Amino acid sequence: MGYDAVYDKMKDECGVFGVWALGQSTEAANFTYLGLHALQHRGQESAGIVSTDGSALHVHRGMGLVADIFNAGELAKLPGGAAIGHVRYSTAGASHLKNAQPIAIQYAGGAVAVAHNGNLVNAETLRTELEAAGSIFQTTSDTEVILHLMARVRPGPAVPGSTEHHLAAIRAALARVSGAYSLLFLTERSMIGARDPQGFRPLVLGKLKGNWVLASETTALDLIEAEYVREIAPGEIVVIDEKGLRSEKLEPTAGPRRLARCVFEHIYFARPDSILFGRSVHEVRSSFGAQLAKDHPVEADVVIAVPDSGVPAAVGYARQSGIPYDVGLVRSHYIGRTFIEPQQSIRHFGVKLKLNAVRGVLRDKRVVVVDDSIVRGTTSRKIVKMIRDAGAKEVHLRISSPPTAWPCYYGIDTPTRQELIAATHSEPEIRDYVTADSLGYLSIDGLYAALGEARQGFCDACFTGEYVLEFPHSRPAAPLRLVGA
Amino acid sequence: MGYDAVYDKMKDECGVFGVWALGQSTEAANFTYLGLHALQHRGQESAGIVSTDGSALHVHRGMGLVADIFNAGELAKLPGGAAIGHVRYSTAGASHLKNAQPIAIQYAGGAVAVAHNGNLVNAETLRTELEAAGSIFQTTSDTEVILHLMARVRPGPAVPGSTEHHLAAIRAALARVSGAYSLLFLTERSMIGARDPQGFRPLVLGKLKGNWVLASETTALDLIEAEYVREIAPGEIVVIDEKGLRSEKLEPTAGPRRLARCVFEHIYFARPDSILFGRSVHEVRSSFGAQLAKDHPVEADVVIAVPDSGVPAAVGYARQSGIPYDVGLVRSHYIGRTFIEPQQSIRHFGVKLKLNAVRGVLRDKRVVVVDDSIVRGTTSRKIVKMIRDAGAKEVHLRISSPPTAWPCYYGIDTPTRQELIAATHSEPEIRDYVTADSLGYLSIDGLYAALGEARQGFCDACFTGEYVLEFPHSRPAAPLRLVGA
Amino acid sequence: MGYDAVYDKMKDECGVFGVWALGQSTEAANFTYLGLHALQHRGQESAGIVSTDGSALHVHRGMGLVADIFNAGELAKLPGGAAIGHVRYSTAGASHLKNAQPIAIQYAGGAVAVAHNGNLVNAETLRTELEAAGSIFQTTSDTEVILHLMARVRPGPAVPGSTEHHLAAIRAALARVSGAYSLLFLTERSMIGARDPQGFRPLVLGKLKGNWVLASETTALDLIEAEYVREIAPGEIVVIDEKGLRSEKLEPTAGPRRLARCVFEHIYFARPDSILFGRSVHEVRSSFGAQLAKDHPVEADVVIAVPDSGVPAAVGYARQSGIPYDVGLVRSHYIGRTFIEPQQSIRHFGVKLKLNAVRGVLRDKRVVVVDDSIVRGTTSRKIVKMIRDAGAKEVHLRISSPPTAWPCYYGIDTPTRQELIAATHSEPEIRDYVTADSLGYLSIDGLYAALGEARQGFCDACFTGEYVLEFPHSRPAAPLRLVGA
Amino acid sequence: MGYDAVYDKMKDECGVFGVWALGQSTEAANFTYLGLHALQHRGQESAGIVSTDGSALHVHRGMGLVADIFNAGELAKLPGGAAIGHVRYSTAGASHLKNAQPIAIQYAGGAVAVAHNGNLVNAETLRTELEAAGSIFQTTSDTEVILHLMARVRPGPAVPGSTEHHLAAIRAALARVSGAYSLLFLTERSMIGARDPQGFRPLVLGKLKGNWVLASETTALDLIEAEYVREIAPGEIVVIDEKGLRSEKLEPTAGPRRLARCVFEHIYFARPDSILFGRSVHEVRSSFGAQLAKDHPVEADVVIAVPDSGVPAAVGYARQSGIPYDVGLVRSHYIGRTFIEPQQSIRHFGVKLKLNAVRGVLRDKRVVVVDDSIVRGTTSRKIVKMIRDAGAKEVHLRISSPPTAWPCYYGIDTPTRQELIAATHSEPEIRDYVTADSLGYLSIDGLYAALGEARQGFCDACFTGEYVLEFPHSRPAAPLRLVGA
Repeated sequence: MGYDAVYDKMKDECGVFGVWALGQSTEAANFTYLGLHALQHRGQESAGIVSTDGSALHVHRGMGLVADIFNAGELAKLPGGAAIGHVRYSTAGASHLKNAQPIAIQYAGGAVAVAHNGNLVNAETLRTELEAAGSIFQTTSDTEVILHLMARVRPGPAVPGSTEHHLAAIRAALARVSGAYSLLFLTERSMIGARDPQGFRPLVLGKLKGNWVLASETTALDLIEAEYVREIAPGEIVVIDEKGLRSEKLEPTAGPRRLARCVFEHIYFARPDSILFGRSVHEVRSSFGAQLAKDHPVEADVVIAVPDSGVPAAVGYARQSGIPYDVGLVRSHYIGRTFIEPQQSIRHFGVKLKLNAVRGVLRDKRVVVVDDSIVRGTTSRKIVKMIRDAGAKEVHLRISSPPTAWPCYYGIDTPTRQELIAATHSEPEIRDYVTADSLGYLSIDGLYAALGEARQGFCDACFTGEYVLEFPHSRPAAPLRLVGA
Repeated sequence: MGYDAVYDKMKDECGVFGVWALGQSTEAANFTYLGLHALQHRGQESAGIVSTDGSALHVHRGMGLVADIFNAGELAKLPGGAAIGHVRYSTAGASHLKNAQPIAIQYAGGAVAVAHNGNLVNAETLRTELEAAGSIFQTTSDTEVILHLMARVRPGPAVPGSTEHHLAAIRAALARVSGAYSLLFLTERSMIGARDPQGFRPLVLGKLKGNWVLASETTALDLIEAEYVREIAPGEIVVIDEKGLRSEKLEPTAGPRRLARCVFEHIYFARPDSILFGRSVHEVRSSFGAQLAKDHPVEADVVIAVPDSGVPAAVGYARQSGIPYDVGLVRSHYIGRTFIEPQQSIRHFGVKLKLNAVRGVLRDKRVVVVDDSIVRGTTSRKIVKMIRDAGAKEVHLRISSPPTAWPCYYGIDTPTRQELIAATHSEPEIRDYVTADSLGYLSIDGLYAALGEARQGFCDACFTGEYVLEFPHSRPAAPLRLVGA
Repeated sequence: MGYDAVYDKMKDECGVFGVWALGQSTEAANFTYLGLHALQHRGQESAGIVSTDGSALHVHRGMGLVADIFNAGELAKLPGGAAIGHVRYSTAGASHLKNAQPIAIQYAGGAVAVAHNGNLVNAETLRTELEAAGSIFQTTSDTEVILHLMARVRPGPAVPGSTEHHLAAIRAALARVSGAYSLLFLTERSMIGARDPQGFRPLVLGKLKGNWVLASETTALDLIEAEYVREIAPGEIVVIDEKGLRSEKLEPTAGPRRLARCVFEHIYFARPDSILFGRSVHEVRSSFGAQLAKDHPVEADVVIAVPDSGVPAAVGYARQSGIPYDVGLVRSHYIGRTFIEPQQSIRHFGVKLKLNAVRGVLRDKRVVVVDDSIVRGTTSRKIVKMIRDAGAKEVHLRISSPPTAWPCYYGIDTPTRQELIAATHSEPEIRDYVTADSLGYLSIDGLYAALGEARQGFCDACFTGEYVLEFPHSRPAAPLRLVGA
Repeated sequence: MGYDAVYDKMKDECGVFGVWALGQSTEAANFTYLGLHALQHRGQESAGIVSTDGSALHVHRGMGLVADIFNAGELAKLPGGAAIGHVRYSTAGASHLKNAQPIAIQYAGGAVAVAHNGNLVNAETLRTELEAAGSIFQTTSDTEVILHLMARVRPGPAVPGSTEHHLAAIRAALARVSGAYSLLFLTERSMIGARDPQGFRPLVLGKLKGNWVLASETTALDLIEAEYVREIAPGEIVVIDEKGLRSEKLEPTAGPRRLARCVFEHIYFARPDSILFGRSVHEVRSSFGAQLAKDHPVEADVVIAVPDSGVPAAVGYARQSGIPYDVGLVRSHYIGRTFIEPQQSIRHFGVKLKLNAVRGVLRDKRVVVVDDSIVRGTTSRKIVKMIRDAGAKEVHLRISSPPTAWPCYYGIDTPTRQELIAATHSEPEIRDYVTADSLGYLSIDGLYAALGEARQGFCDACFTGEYVLEFPHSRPAAPLRLVGA
C-alpha cells in the first residue's frame, strides 16, 4: 500500500527493517518498532519483529498496524541487540496471521528468520519441486520457498549455526530463485541483507553510532536519526556479524542481467521524504508534474492535488505552468481501516468520507487537478464530480504517470488486466468516463526525461507490458488449498 | 482539538450534530454518525449519539473515535427519525465516560438529551446554588447545570412532554447562564438548537431533502450532501418539530451584548473546507498568510508549511511574496492516539514520529516555514531544528496569528498562562528559543485586515486578554470531588 | 443471580461490600475487589468500586465480571484506605453501564457514593414527586431516588462534608423510602451501612485487624480472612469514621413493622458457605432436603442433585431417607456468559451445554433428583429427560422449596406471574409437564419446620402471595424513557 | 489440564474431535465447536478447527477458550461437511499461537491437517534426522515431525490427493514414531484417526445419524447426541471417506507390544461422565474411594471431597465406610484464567479464591477429606489448614491414587521429579507437611483391584517409574531456539 492508502490504488507489498548490535535489553526491538512505524505506508495488514539475544530468536507477529500489535509489554519480550521487522500489505480476502512475517524456522543450519519485500516468479515451480522432494508448506507465501531451499542445499564444511553456514545456505537458495526480493535474514549471531540482481525493490544501508541498519526506505533511517550510507546494490548480499559488515555479490542466475528498478516506487509507493534509487522522491515527483505541465498545458486558474500523493506533482505542475497552486481538496485524518459505512439504505459515501472540496478555492474556476495514477477510474470520476459540484467551471485531470495497463508480477498487488481502465479504454474514453474536460497522462518518454535516467535501468511493465523477467503465463488459481489462520 | 491534532496545540472542546425527521429505522443515527465523523477534528476523546423514535430516547456513548465507538450493531440500537450527536476533546488526565455527551435525563418535562459545545462562565456559581437547593451532580461538566436549571424552572401551563414545555424550560435555563454555548437538545418529539448571544462557537443550519440538519461546521453538511442554509444567529433558538422549524430570540441576559465569535476557529480549529461565520476558512487562512508576507517579508528560496494546518497560510504567503511554495515537511498518516513510544532508554522521538523533513526541498535553502500558532514553543523548536538538520541555510518562522498569551474561558482547553511562551517571553526571546533566524507573528490589526471584518464582532482574548464576558478569577482547583468513570 | 447461574432461575439483584481504613495506597480497593469476587454469584452484569483518599472519591465501573472489569492498573487508580463496591445482576435486555453501581454524586453535603442491594416499593411515587420539585434522573435505578432525597432534605446545623451532615441526610432520605435495601454509603471521610426495617436483604459486619468490613454475605469475610462480628440488624444504621463505629436505629416509617427476611436467600441465592440470618446456609438447605424426605418419601435406588445449588438438599434427602447419594449429573466448568450457540440449523443445546448425565449412576435405577426450585418448568423437563435418556427406570423430582407462584417486588428479578408454571398449573400438571414419575415440593410448614424459625420473621411472598409491604399494583411499563448507555 | 483445573494438578495435554459428512454449510464446524467445548477440560490454552469443503481446508485457531476463539462469524468461515478440532493445555511460559493445533500443511500428497493428543518419545531423534535431510521446523511441537515424515515417504502408486495416498503416507510416518498418540487427520476428502499401539491416550468412535464422529472422550458424543460405538483400538487406524469407514492395523513397530493405557485418565483427567477404556469414569473413581476406605479406615464424623474432582471417590469412601458424606468445601464458579490477584502488599490468596470451607459441616468434626492426587503438596497443605480453621477437630487426608513420584513422558505435563513431593518425601513426612492427622494413599494393588483390571494393560509410570517405552534420558533443554508467536 502506498503513501496515503485511502483511494483505489495499486498496493505495495511490504517493508523491511533491521538493526544490528545496539546493545542489550530491548533496544533493537524498540528501534525496529520505530523503523516499521516509518514504513507503515508499505503495508498495514500485519507486522512482526524477530530479535536475537545471541542464543535464541524471539518472535512476535500480529494482524493490524504496528502501533496496535506492539506495546511496551510485547517489546520487552523481544530481547537482544539485533532485530528485523516486516510490515505487510492489506488485501480484502486473504489476510492470514500465518502469512505474517518475519517467518522464523529451525533447520539443520540453526535458527533463522526472514523478512521479504517482493515476489518470486518461479515460486510455484520451486514449490512443486520441493514438495516432490518431501517438503511441507505451512503458508501461502513465496518466502517459505526460500527457507526450504536453504534447508535443502549442502552448504559445505561450515559449522552449523555459524554465519558461514547460514550464508552458504542463503547464497545457494538465492541462486535458485528468480524475481523481486529485498530480503533481511536474522540468525542468532548475524544479520544478512540481500537484493535481487534486477533491483526491483529498494533496500538501503544506514549507520547509527557504529551500528548497522537496513531498511526499505531512508525515511526509516531519518526517524531513528541514523545516517544514510548507501543503497544495497542490485545483486548484492551484505553480511553483518561480530566481525563487522562485508559485502558480496550474489551468484549469477540465468536470465536477463539488466536492472529493473520499479519506477512506480517513484510515482507512488515510496514516501516523498525518502531518497530512492539515489534520488529524492519528492523532487522526482515535482519533476513529473513539471514535465506534465510541458506536455499537457491548459489555460486554468488554479492547480490542485489529490492529497496527499498528488501534491508534489501538483506543486511541480503549478511552478512550471505559472498557474497558482492551492488546496482544493481536504483530506480527513480520521479514516482508518476500521471505518464501517452505515447500513445500505443510505447511499454509498465512499470518497466523500476521505475527501472534501474547498468551495472557495474552486468556485467559478478552471481547475487543473493532479493525481499520480488511475487504476479503475471510479475514484477519479468521483473526484472530478466533487470538484465540479463545488463550482468549478472546468476540470482538467493530469496524471503524473503513464496509463496503468498491465498487472505486476514483481511484488505489487494490482487488479486483473480487465479491471485496469487503461487496459480496455482509450484516453478519450477514460476522459469521458471520469467526466473531465481534458485528461493528460505523463508519457513514458516524459517520465524518463523528468527522472533524468535511462529507461533500461527500470521496470515499467505496468505501463508497457514489457516484463523483464519471465513469469508464469497463468497464475495458478489456488496454488495452496489452505485457507485461514 | 483542531484540524490535525498532532502537535502541541490548543484544543477545541467539542462538535455537535443533529438531524430531524429522516424517516424511520436508523437513518437518523446513521447520518449523525457520518456527521460526527466529519466533525471528528473537534474532539477525539469520546462521542455519543441519542436518537428518538417518538416515544423514547435511545443512547449510546463511548470513549475514543467515532469509528471505534459505533458499528452497525450499535447504530441499529438507535432507532428513529431524529438524532443528535457529540464529539468531545481529549485531555491527558480527565477522560471519563461519565462526561461523554449527549447527556440524557428525565425530568418533570419529560425526557431530554443535550449536546454542548462551549463553556459557561457562571457554572460554578450556579452549581453551588443548585446544590443548595437540593440538586445532585453526577458529572463534572457545565452542561449538567443547564439540565438542572431546566428542571427547576416552572415552565407555565404547557403540557409536560410537549415541545412548548421543553422549550419554556430551555429558555428559562439559558436566561440564567452566561458563557459560550452552541447547544442541541433532543426530546421525544422535537429538536432544538441554541447559540449564545455572543456567538462564541459556530452552529449552522442545513437542509437535506426537506429534513433539517444542525452542525458545528458546514463540512458535516457537505459529507451527507445537505444544503447549507445559514448560520444560527447569536442569541437565536430554533425549534424543529412536526410543525416545522421556527426561530426565536433568547431572552436578553445581563452583561455585554456585543458579538464575540471565536477568531481562533478561523486560525486553527475549523476545517479549512468549512464556511465559518460566513467566510471560507481556507480563504481566510490564505489571507492571513498573504498579510503575514506583507508584514514580515524576508528574502528566501522556498515557503513551506507545518502540515496540515499551516498549509493554507503558507500558500497565501507564497503567493503574496512570490517565493515558491513547496512541501518541506511530510506528515505520517499512521499516528493515532494509541502510539506508545518505546521505553525510556532510547531517546524521545516526539515530533519525529509525526513529521519528517524533505531534504531535497530544504538543502542549502533559505526557508520560510509557516505555522498557525505557537503554544509552549517546544514543538516549534524541534521543527526548526529538523529543517536545519535537513540542510536549510536559514529558517524564518512565520505564525499566522498573534502571540497566544492568555487562557481561554469560553470552551478552549489552553495551558495555564505560565505555560504559554508568549505570556512570559518577548518575540526576540521566542525567536531565540525556537532557534529561528527570524520570527514574525501576524498582528491583531493584520488579522482583522486580512479577515476583512471589524474587531468588535470577535473574541480575541487569547491574544489580547480582553475578555468579553467576566469569568471567575481563579478557577476552582477541584470543583468536583469525583474522579473516574 | 444465584449461586450457580446456569439454569432458569430467579435472579438476585446485587451484592455489596465495603472496607474502612486499611491504610493508604490501594489496599482498600484491592480488598473490595476480592470481596466482590466472593459475591460474584449475586450479580454478573456489572461491577464497580469507589474509594476515598480522604479528599476525593475515585470511581471505576464497568460491564461484566469483576475479574474482567478490574486489573492492576485500574485498581491503582482507586487510592485510599476505604472503599465500597457493588456487583449487579444480569438480565437479557436492560444492561446499561449507566445503571452500574456504586453511583457517585456531589450534593450540598459533599461527595457521596452509594451501593444498593434491594428494591424500593415507593420509588415511582418518589420519583414523580422529585421530578415535580425539579430533580433530574440520569439512570433507571431506584437508588438514584435515595440520593435525590438526601440532597433535598435540610440536614440541620451540621457542617457540609462532615459525617454528621451526610448521616442526617441519609437518615432523612431513608425515612421516606419503603422497600428492601441493604445500603453502603461512602463519603470522603466515612462509611455508612443501613438495612431496611424489614431486613429483606442480608448485610453483615466483619472485622479485619481493627478495620471494619460490611458485606452482603459472610463468604466475602472468609475470603479476606476477616472475622464475622454480627448481622447489621433490620432498621439499623452503622456509621464508621475516624471516631470508630457507632450504631443507630433508623427512624420509624409508616407501615408494618414486622421482619421480612427473604427466605429465598436460604433456598437459593446465598452461597452455601455463608452464615445467613444467623444460620449456616448449607445446613439449612440440608434440613430442607431431610424434611422433603419425610414429607415426600419414595422407594428409590439413588438420590442425585441438580448441581450445584441442589447438592445440599440432596445430601439431606439421602441421609434422611437412607437412599445413597451419588453424582448423577456433571456440570461443565466452562460455560460463561459469552458462549454463543452455533447457528440455528443445528438444534438447540441449552441445558446440555451445562449438564451431562452419568450413565453408570443412573442406568436401570429408580432416581430421586433434588432441585431447589422450579421457575418456568422448561429446564426441569429437560433434566428429567436427560436422566431418563441415561437409562433411569423412574425419575422422582423433589424440590426443596414450595411452588414459586408470585413475583417478587423486593429485589429479585422474577418472570411475570404468567410465566411461573406454579402460578398456572397444579402440582399434578407440573409433574406431567416435566415428565417425572412423581413430584414433591417442600410445604410452607415444612420449610419453617426445617428452618426452625417462626414464619412471621420472613418474607415468603413468592410462594404465598402474602406481601409484607404494599407495592404498586401494576408496575409502570416504562417508567423512564431513556434506553442505552 | 484435568476436569476442574483450579489447583496444583498434573496437566493433560490435549483433546481431539472430528466429524465426517454432516452435509454442507458450516454444520461440521459447528458440531466440532460443541465437541471441543465438551473437551475443554483437556486443554484451555488454545483451540482450533479445520474444515474441508471437498476442495480446500479452512483453518481457524487462536489462544484461549473455545468460547472466546470462535463466534458465529468465525464458524461461518469454516464451510463443509467434515472438520477436526483440537484443544491444548495451558502452561505458564510457553504458550504460542504457532503451537496451536490442528496444524494444516500442503505436501506432495495434497493438503492435510492434523490434531494430536500425546507425546512422542523419539521426536528429537527424528527431528535431527529430518533437519539433516533438509526439513525446516516452524513449531516446537512433536506433531510437526509426523507431517514431515508423511512428506518424506514414497507412498507408492497412489494418486496424490487420494485417500490412499494420504493413508500410505500416514502409515509410513507412524511406522517411524514411538510414543503416545491419538491422532485425527483431515484431508480434502477423508478423515483418518489413529491410536498408538500402547493405547496411552483414549480415542472413541461415535455415530450421529449415519455420520461418523471421533473424540477423545464420550462426553463429547453425549453433548451432540451421537451414539457411542466403540473405542478405537490401540494400534488401529480408521479411514473415513465417501466409501464409508474402514479399519486397519498400524504396522508393527519395534519395541514392547503391551498395552499401556494411562491410568491417570481414570484417576483425574477424564470427565466423570465419560466412558473410558470401556469403564464409567465416575464408577471407577467411586470404587477407588471405596477401596481407600477399606485400606485406610478411620473413625470420623463426615467425609468431604476436594471439589470437583475428589467428589466421586469421596462418595465411594462414604458409602463403604458408613460415614456420612457432606459438602465441606465450596468452589467458586467465577475463577477463570484471567483473574489477577491484587498487588503484592496484601497477602497471597491462592486456594482461597477458589475454595471456601463450610463451617457448619466441619465445626467440631473429625473430617475425612478425599482428593485425587498430591503433586507438590502446597495446595493440600492449604486445604487442610482451611478445614482446620473452620473448626474441624481432626483432618484425615485420603488420596484416591498412589503417590505421584515420577514424571510422565507420554503426554502429561508434570513437574520435574524434584518438585513432586512424593519423590523426595516419605508418607509420614508428607502427612506432617500437609499437617493432616492421618494420610492414606490408594496402593497400586488397591488401584487395580478397584479398577477390576490387570495391571499390565496400563501405564502407571507416574507412580512406579516403570516406563513401558524408552524415553530420552535427558530431555533436551531447549531443542528449538525459537521463542514467541
